[in-house]
Amino acid sequence: MLKTIEWRDDQVVMIDQRKLPMQERYVICKDYRSVIRSIKDLVIRGAPAIGVAAAMGVALGALKIRAARMDRFRARFDAICREMVAARPTAANLAWAVERMKKVADEISHREPGEVKLRLVKEAQAILEEDIAINKAMGRQGQRLLKDGNRVLTHCNAGALATGGYGTALGVVRAAVEAGKQIEVVADETRPFLQGARLTAWEMKESRIPVTVITDNSAGYLMQRGKVDAVVVGADRIAANGDVANKIGTYMVAILARTHKIPFYVAAPMSTIDASIKTGKEIPIEQRHEKEVTHHQGRRCVPEGVGIENPAFDVTPHRYVSAIITEKGVITPPFKAKIRRLFASE
Amino acid sequence: MLKTIEWRDDQVVMIDQRKLPMQERYVICKDYRSVIRSIKDLVIRGAPAIGVAAAMGVALGALKIRAARMDRFRARFDAICREMVAARPTAANLAWAVERMKKVADEISHREPGEVKLRLVKEAQAILEEDIAINKAMGRQGQRLLKDGNRVLTHCNAGALATGGYGTALGVVRAAVEAGKQIEVVADETRPFLQGARLTAWEMKESRIPVTVITDNSAGYLMQRGKVDAVVVGADRIAANGDVANKIGTYMVAILARTHKIPFYVAAPMSTIDASIKTGKEIPIEQRHEKEVTHHQGRRCVPEGVGIENPAFDVTPHRYVSAIITEKGVITPPFKAKIRRLFASE
Repeated sequence: MLKTIEWRDDQVVMIDQRKLPMQERYVICKDYRSVIRSIKDLVIRGAPAIGVAAAMGVALGALKIRAARMDRFRARFDAICREMVAARPTAANLAWAVERMKKVADEISHREPGEVKLRLVKEAQAILEEDIAINKAMGRQGQRLLKDGNRVLTHCNAGALATGGYGTALGVVRAAVEAGKQIEVVADETRPFLQGARLTAWEMKESRIPVTVITDNSAGYLMQRGKVDAVVVGADRIAANGDVANKIGTYMVAILARTHKIPFYVAAPMSTIDASIKTGKEIPIEQRHEKEVTHHQGRRCVPEGVGIENPAFDVTPHRYVSAIITEKGVITPPFKAKIRRLFASE
Repeated sequence: MLKTIEWRDDQVVMIDQRKLPMQERYVICKDYRSVIRSIKDLVIRGAPAIGVAAAMGVALGALKIRAARMDRFRARFDAICREMVAARPTAANLAWAVERMKKVADEISHREPGEVKLRLVKEAQAILEEDIAINKAMGRQGQRLLKDGNRVLTHCNAGALATGGYGTALGVVRAAVEAGKQIEVVADETRPFLQGARLTAWEMKESRIPVTVITDNSAGYLMQRGKVDAVVVGADRIAANGDVANKIGTYMVAILARTHKIPFYVAAPMSTIDASIKTGKEIPIEQRHEKEVTHHQGRRCVPEGVGIENPAFDVTPHRYVSAIITEKGVITPPFKAKIRRLFASE
């Protein structure tokens, strides 16, 4: 399995997810601004992966700060952190990772910048390692929800490529397969960026897990025919009440699942839960460039001069969610008190 | 407005809907087999337009039959009709139009082949003219369901390009606009063939009706935000109980509309209603080539060796349909007896 993101020789190396699976190319970021650009341009995507990239990005930024005195270092570092947090608005993990990096800087604020820099680089690498471990824990927790022979529909890519490795939703699938269950994946292609058709299909194929790609609008057809046993998706941000922001179309899948009495599971690390917001209504939804919709392979398909709406995410109200799978356990509705308890046990 | 299909100098001329809106090209069919190929390859699509093409196709086939005796002419003509009906399995209008052409041949079976040929050519042209008139009648009937200021979501293209002209679902929109109402259209892009993004957007732009294109998976997002007031779609076949086969994804839109308490209207001519089948379960659903899903602008995006499911249509159970708009009136549930009555009044 290729690595999603790596810290190598004081550079951040990412596989270019815009090119996969037809081309395997890497983007090498030598400064924090190119990490920001890579996040904005979807070289790397997926909430946990964005978190890792942000942490590595601010570490990279910190490394390059020329300041002998800690107060000047810190002022510059905080500015870098602010820029990083603004890269994309929806994923909770971005702010979470940057916050964690700032806490490290806070804790050793009495030391020299040189030492703080090394600590920040270590912390970013630790976030990557932890993320993989968290995904595996989530997989162990979540795989019990899947039965041998299940056909599992997923939307977007919540796999190894969306995380440090292993995956959230696809981590649950991987763990079920590792536990000896036969699982088939149905991947919504996930317009406009085709994370499902390109990335989920590729990951599953690499892992020899059977996968079938469908257009997003075919999910209802398959469910109506009894060809989907469970839905597992990732999340970009989860509110304190269990409302889930995830890739555009997730809400539609949740409604379809409910209509067909199919369980709808969300797999996400604790870092995706934003306890500071009460409901999904407060989650900012990124609107992306219309070219993502109007152009295919660089060629325009939609006539010029018509309106385009291109929200990158939607919010699934908690009442559609059968369970949230975290590394600390699986919780079922009602979510609010249970989410609070998960945080209390941290 | 460009013409969808035309009979010109004993040839059938179609605008190539695979190329629109970026290129305006025409396919000239000189024999019935090239009409069949054009139907299969989606040069022309949309149930009523396929009906017109099929009628013109068998007329073209008839013209070229070299037979002095009527029995030999008829044997060849029936073989052409069988081939034509098999071009695509789901749209009711294909079989309906061929049946009507055969009836003409039946009625004057005592005449010479030469005369029968001319009658068939006239009949095919009459089917085209009638289709436009039917669409306009449907528009007059249906437009009353739309209110001034409505945002109307539609899936696929049920417009002038899907018919002889004017359109079924988009005909209803056109008629509402002609009645002085301000209507905005939201067009699902409609993967994989992008009839919404390419054809509906183009038609609406040409007619100066405001249109916004969204990915299919954004429909729920817009409905959740109160940005859709009504859904109007076309149909490829309607069963005797009101179940509706239409472009893949229509079922999903119907469920979303129901969840958000938005009316879901189906506009279709009587020729789309197949009274010979009891429910939608009996409607054959065409599976199309996986390349439609795996390739974008001729370039592969999905890794090789993964499964693809590419149904061209789905069936929306009648319980999700708020009203069926036909040229003979608008009917509301329960549909079965009302559909029977519409046919009885023919």
